[in-house]
Amino acid sequence: MSAPRTADLGFARLDLDREARTGTPEVIFAAGKTADQTVACLAALLEGSPTPFAWASRVDGATAAAIRERWPDAVVDEEAGCAFVGAVPDPVGEVLVLTAGTSDGPVAAEVAATLRACGVGCRRVDDVGVAGIHRVLAVAPDLGAADAVVVVAGMDGALPSVVAGLTDRLVVAVPTSVGYGAAFEGLAALLTMLTACAPGVLVVNIDNGFGAGVAAARIARSAQR
Amino acid sequence: MSAPRTADLGFARLDLDREARTGTPEVIFAAGKTADQTVACLAALLEGSPTPFAWASRVDGATAAAIRERWPDAVVDEEAGCAFVGAVPDPVGEVLVLTAGTSDGPVAAEVAATLRACGVGCRRVDDVGVAGIHRVLAVAPDLGAADAVVVVAGMDGALPSVVAGLTDRLVVAVPTSVGYGAAFEGLAALLTMLTACAPGVLVVNIDNGFGAGVAAARIARSAQR
Amino acid sequence: MSAPRTADLGFARLDLDREARTGTPEVIFAAGKTADQTVACLAALLEGSPTPFAWASRVDGATAAAIRERWPDAVVDEEAGCAFVGAVPDPVGEVLVLTAGTSDGPVAAEVAATLRACGVGCRRVDDVGVAGIHRVLAVAPDLGAADAVVVVAGMDGALPSVVAGLTDRLVVAVPTSVGYGAAFEGLAALLTMLTACAPGVLVVNIDNGFGAGVAAARIARSAQR
Amino acid sequence: MSAPRTADLGFARLDLDREARTGTPEVIFAAGKTADQTVACLAALLEGSPTPFAWASRVDGATAAAIRERWPDAVVDEEAGCAFVGAVPDPVGEVLVLTAGTSDGPVAAEVAATLRACGVGCRRVDDVGVAGIHRVLAVAPDLGAADAVVVVAGMDGALPSVVAGLTDRLVVAVPTSVGYGAAFEGLAALLTMLTACAPGVLVVNIDNGFGAGVAAARIARSAQR
Amino acid sequence: MSAPRTADLGFARLDLDREARTGTPEVIFAAGKTADQTVACLAALLEGSPTPFAWASRVDGATAAAIRERWPDAVVDEEAGCAFVGAVPDPVGEVLVLTAGTSDGPVAAEVAATLRACGVGCRRVDDVGVAGIHRVLAVAPDLGAADAVVVVAGMDGALPSVVAGLTDRLVVAVPTSVGYGAAFEGLAALLTMLTACAPGVLVVNIDNGFGAGVAAARIARSAQR
Amino acid sequence: MSAPRTADLGFARLDLDREARTGTPEVIFAAGKTADQTVACLAALLEGSPTPFAWASRVDGATAAAIRERWPDAVVDEEAGCAFVGAVPDPVGEVLVLTAGTSDGPVAAEVAATLRACGVGCRRVDDVGVAGIHRVLAVAPDLGAADAVVVVAGMDGALPSVVAGLTDRLVVAVPTSVGYGAAFEGLAALLTMLTACAPGVLVVNIDNGFGAGVAAARIARSAQR
Amino acid sequence: MSAPRTADLGFARLDLDREARTGTPEVIFAAGKTADQTVACLAALLEGSPTPFAWASRVDGATAAAIRERWPDAVVDEEAGCAFVGAVPDPVGEVLVLTAGTSDGPVAAEVAATLRACGVGCRRVDDVGVAGIHRVLAVAPDLGAADAVVVVAGMDGALPSVVAGLTDRLVVAVPTSVGYGAAFEGLAALLTMLTACAPGVLVVNIDNGFGAGVAAARIARSAQR
Amino acid sequence: MSAPRTADLGFARLDLDREARTGTPEVIFAAGKTADQTVACLAALLEGSPTPFAWASRVDGATAAAIRERWPDAVVDEEAGCAFVGAVPDPVGEVLVLTAGTSDGPVAAEVAATLRACGVGCRRVDDVGVAGIHRVLAVAPDLGAADAVVVVAGMDGALPSVVAGLTDRLVVAVPTSVGYGAAFEGLAALLTMLTACAPGVLVVNIDNGFGAGVAAARIARSAQR
Repeated sequence: MSAPRTADLGFARLDLDREARTGTPEVIFAAGKTADQTVACLAALLEGSPTPFAWASRVDGATAAAIRERWPDAVVDEEAGCAFVGAVPDPVGEVLVLTAGTSDGPVAAEVAATLRACGVGCRRVDDVGVAGIHRVLAVAPDLGAADAVVVVAGMDGALPSVVAGLTDRLVVAVPTSVGYGAAFEGLAALLTMLTACAPGVLVVNIDNGFGAGVAAARIARSAQR
Repeated sequence: MSAPRTADLGFARLDLDREARTGTPEVIFAAGKTADQTVACLAALLEGSPTPFAWASRVDGATAAAIRERWPDAVVDEEAGCAFVGAVPDPVGEVLVLTAGTSDGPVAAEVAATLRACGVGCRRVDDVGVAGIHRVLAVAPDLGAADAVVVVAGMDGALPSVVAGLTDRLVVAVPTSVGYGAAFEGLAALLTMLTACAPGVLVVNIDNGFGAGVAAARIARSAQR
Repeated sequence: MSAPRTADLGFARLDLDREARTGTPEVIFAAGKTADQTVACLAALLEGSPTPFAWASRVDGATAAAIRERWPDAVVDEEAGCAFVGAVPDPVGEVLVLTAGTSDGPVAAEVAATLRACGVGCRRVDDVGVAGIHRVLAVAPDLGAADAVVVVAGMDGALPSVVAGLTDRLVVAVPTSVGYGAAFEGLAALLTMLTACAPGVLVVNIDNGFGAGVAAARIARSAQR
Repeated sequence: MSAPRTADLGFARLDLDREARTGTPEVIFAAGKTADQTVACLAALLEGSPTPFAWASRVDGATAAAIRERWPDAVVDEEAGCAFVGAVPDPVGEVLVLTAGTSDGPVAAEVAATLRACGVGCRRVDDVGVAGIHRVLAVAPDLGAADAVVVVAGMDGALPSVVAGLTDRLVVAVPTSVGYGAAFEGLAALLTMLTACAPGVLVVNIDNGFGAGVAAARIARSAQR
Repeated sequence: MSAPRTADLGFARLDLDREARTGTPEVIFAAGKTADQTVACLAALLEGSPTPFAWASRVDGATAAAIRERWPDAVVDEEAGCAFVGAVPDPVGEVLVLTAGTSDGPVAAEVAATLRACGVGCRRVDDVGVAGIHRVLAVAPDLGAADAVVVVAGMDGALPSVVAGLTDRLVVAVPTSVGYGAAFEGLAALLTMLTACAPGVLVVNIDNGFGAGVAAARIARSAQR
Repeated sequence: MSAPRTADLGFARLDLDREARTGTPEVIFAAGKTADQTVACLAALLEGSPTPFAWASRVDGATAAAIRERWPDAVVDEEAGCAFVGAVPDPVGEVLVLTAGTSDGPVAAEVAATLRACGVGCRRVDDVGVAGIHRVLAVAPDLGAADAVVVVAGMDGALPSVVAGLTDRLVVAVPTSVGYGAAFEGLAALLTMLTACAPGVLVVNIDNGFGAGVAAARIARSAQR
Repeated sequence: MSAPRTADLGFARLDLDREARTGTPEVIFAAGKTADQTVACLAALLEGSPTPFAWASRVDGATAAAIRERWPDAVVDEEAGCAFVGAVPDPVGEVLVLTAGTSDGPVAAEVAATLRACGVGCRRVDDVGVAGIHRVLAVAPDLGAADAVVVVAGMDGALPSVVAGLTDRLVVAVPTSVGYGAAFEGLAALLTMLTACAPGVLVVNIDNGFGAGVAAARIARSAQR
Repeated sequence: MSAPRTADLGFARLDLDREARTGTPEVIFAAGKTADQTVACLAALLEGSPTPFAWASRVDGATAAAIRERWPDAVVDEEAGCAFVGAVPDPVGEVLVLTAGTSDGPVAAEVAATLRACGVGCRRVDDVGVAGIHRVLAVAPDLGAADAVVVVAGMDGALPSVVAGLTDRLVVAVPTSVGYGAAFEGLAALLTMLTACAPGVLVVNIDNGFGAGVAAARIARSAQR
């Protein structure tokens, strides 16, 4: 393995060849960084990457402002907490993103933003939880048209079990921290999804829209090859 | 409150007026008792109760044999691990008992045995988990005919959420210890049911078919009054 | 199953036939929604539902203000965090709501508000925890007059075990997050209630006054049929 | 502090002055030891202690046989799993030991055996759980006659909360591993007791009859001084 | 049992005979109450109790101010978060209160305030954790002069194990939420104390200085009888 | 949705159209069934399915013997605990299965058996854990040749994080219950994989080789379309 | 053991001979103390210690200001939250400190500050997590030059397993609370490190840079003796 | 990094250069392997390693017999569950191994066996738990003579906190699964050790005598260089 190129900023060591190696562009996870650190990382990526594009997730208001100040034409997706700098890639394929309830929206938005950054198309249908099973059945005909299905659900996290029984597509399940009490910040939904009685369900961390998006993008790109 | 009559066996203090007070006959929970203790408790109940009937749950083979030796016409339900001595009450009303999978059978059997002991009718439909949602939809038309619905499910425990969205009957949810790994001996199903996205779901302890049966019997008797 | 009518607001998919199907009017859970979203949902429900009534739970100050601005004669129950728009249904039957301590009040208020929205009567007695068992015994004579009993308790959560041994009514137990340390945000009370030594206890999620109210309403309606 | 005398057996370092220092005779906890090790420890204690008495807890059948072989007049309490060698001290004072259910018996027996070894009197009343609250009220008049009250309970562990509200005596609460599912091997009862809504409740480890007995003995001896 | 007298404030049901029955004056736990509710409770207790004294714990700044406004000569212990109204009882006996570290101070202060309200004397020695074992040994000679010892410790919670091996007095162990990471808000200290290798240790809830104080007061009063 | 065909055996309700609907043949999960029940299910599947093939997982010795008695040419994979009856489908594509240690072998075998039943090719490389990172680097060149990579690991579960950083293929991570102490029956590995610092990792339940196999098969089939 | 000298401030009991006894200077843990208490402790240490140096950890802005006001030439390390008063000891030896990601920086800074206070040299390399394994391999040649290696990692905590397989130096692993969801405030990383598949890894509490620094300093001093 | 030499047995991939790279000889962890697999691994190590020595841990009776059959002069340490084949290295330096109680013996034996395999001297003192603190003080003078101290303790796990306050040597703490109830299979001791109030304590997995031995050996070798 020849060593990948790295941009060493002292506090961070950016992986300039990640996209070449893993098919997914490096992302700047802004949650543990100052606004200045995030801007510096984006700048280094833009300069060093083979593609004129960089992006950051978990961006708060202050960081979004700093990004816009540096790159006035940056695009900030406020629901998703993501910022895009440079040329967003053209989308190929399509991933279907479902949410169980309205409160799961921000996580679904992060999935969608990640797909966008990875150059994969996305269709989103919200609030189709199993308490009104007819809402799930209504989307059943669309499942087969997608390259993969991402299901975002908090509380009981039951939606992926139902969806996976209706399709031959891979279901990427994202538990969310929506709920209270015995939802235990998403633990209930996480355990539900891990023990889903239907096979074909794969799980990411609680609220991890980014991880689900990257995974779905890999599947979609693989199917489009 | 005048003090209820009690049969004091030293190691146990039997509540002879429980049925009069709570509508449910006292049960002998055999799991923590020797075969001799269980037999002695049943004998004391038969002698002291106003009705010529007594029963025990969580009965193993040795205890079942001891009961049969003492009362040759005792009825032992082996799937449920329950034994009935004396005249089983005639059933009124009907409770619908659903299981998500075949392995949930023994717990559903305990629900059914408890309903029998409480004098309430029972209809049972097995293996209608949400991975094949058409199986759930197939029982939907029957929900309204029941006084209450008991749903028994392990693994992801998702079935009660779906059922409760299809009916105006109360759903008594029983998580089971069926599953492995992140099912954590029924914890996953328990949390799922407690956080069910559909209202109208009430939950009992893991594998507690007895508790679900008593509760459903109370609802059925209330509806039949 | 003919597909229920749905009001699709994009971010939400409202179930206009929920009351017809489940006997309980759809509620807007405001906790994960903006004030505007909650108002839009209430408006859509009012317009699309067969009954001229809609309500929301987990309403904070800002959302309550927005509701009042849109519907000046809306009724806001501040202790419960609930808002009612339109004609509250007339109550039938009666549910007895008990709290173990003063701090359990807001959850009991949510139970009462839910019963109100469901058109069921409610009587509430506060601060009858088991540390002063005479307080529990004092309400014992009233238990038989109720269609169901809801018991709200935090800390040790011991009250439902005692109450269920005194009555033939179903006891709906609501653990609350009242307490500190080993109360673990309501987990201690939840486990106590799930393992109650008296049968006839059914449990809902921590602080879930709404769920307890819906369940008690179903029982009361069933008993009144 | 002058160093206490120690009997060094290599695998164990026995504290010969423990009784002088702490008022409680050293016990041999047999659970992690071979039968030979337990016998050797008892012999060393008998030889080195100021009093002609030694005892062991958590004794299984093989170890009990080995003890009886070495000391034919040893007393073995099989329910408690304890063995006494030499002159059991005369009892002073009285501790009241209550159990919630029949299955809690072995732990209560360990409490009683420990009190016996510590030279404190014991009265035991079994199966007075809160599901039949009249059974608790029946023992209320006896509480004031005891130097301390030990309450042994599994499942919901609710009994100490009720007892402590009825007396000015200290209540030593012992959670047991009796129960299943959400009882989590005694965790539910432990949390209940730690969060008891009545003050005056102190808690020991799950199934720790020995610890409860030593504590109650200290209180009784203190009250008798 | 003749029913104890109760002051019914609607939101609270005060136990006016608690001191007569349990030897400990009723306390107003202010944490879940408004300042007005706490003042109303104190007033009702003062009026209805046989002794001219009332007190409240977990009092914040606003509530303390409200108490002082109503009773200008009320005494507020700010470290403990407790307020005393009326005549504090004269102390009898003495309880020794030890802390492992400086940060455990507020919990120890609540122990001391409770002892004061219960009319029991208190001596407090701070910061004697086991990391400097000589500090523990330095207090060893004082242990025998106390009626009981309360040990307050966070982090590893190891101090009670050492103290209980040095004395024949009962050790009341109070785990605190001091620490971070794997201290898990006091859980580590709680488990340590429950599994203490020395007998004679009894445990209360995390940060429960009140419960430890009441228990120690009962022991001291018992020893002074 | 036209209702799928079902074989109703009373204790089980087999989904005869699962393969048509989800691309994966129905499996008989033998763990909760008797040998007779498993055989009956396999027979019903063989009779009712469009393809002359059926299989079962979690098969123990007794069940394997019963299968062989009924179908003498059945193939039993003992390491995997799986049995195949009828014509195993021809494999397309290839999934690479890696294990971290020798003890992870049986779970990897279940992955391989599932791929076989789904008609997908499999290459397996064992014992390439990160403690000898050169072993991981040695397989790096092979990653790109696979349609998907399944990584099976217990203990620290660190292997998927490293592998996902080396490839653009999706990594399906299977935590195993290998390990002791703080491995907590696979919980440590599960959490590690859910929080993997490299994206592109999707997780199944602990020891769920079946689920990983089905998911990998869906990806491989999608890539081969 | 002659009793160590102690500075008794009432709220604290400072160990003036700790450095002589344990080789590590006493530290003032400021998190549970007021600014005044921290300053008083530092002053007492400076006065009573054999060396003209004192320091505090977990210092917030207010406490840092109070320290600077009292000792204008105090050095405050803001990233680490540490303050040094007096003459920092000259460093001997060298410890290599690695972080998995940028967000782990503050904990690594606490390690470095502790090493500084203990008089041990430190080299720090940031952001070498296993998702880009080439970054780990790049530091491999430097491992043998260090007296010990401290590895600071949140999320999956996988870095120590890889590093320990590359060196014969002891690896001190520090889990951090970096991450979300199933990272459970550092629990995931903690379990990963405890179950590391490579031996030679020792673990400290979550975010405990101080403890890791002291341990590494002891190893370095031992190696330099 | 030139790739280390590997012995590929199919089911295992042995690291022949581990000792050269990490200073510790490769061990065969027998717990997850058949007797034949363990023997084959030992044979391959003996053949491929630069030193004529190999060993295995977690060896049960059957595996020990198989080893003895192949290598009649193999040494089996039954208390430790370890087997040594070939020339055990001569010991350098000395590690002091302490146990809190007799039941911790087997884990201490694994520590000692690992030190032996690593060529480091060992002195072991058993049963010096903190309940008799004089036993700890009695070993205090020996601490300074050791290169490192390993402390093995179950139940409350308090011993390392005390020992680390008495010495400048590194303390390697090994929690054991000794205890019951709230000891939670070693979790209580693990948390105690992680939150030890004295610095200089590093922790390994529950019952991981092997890991503690390797770490202590690294420290001892480093100190002896």
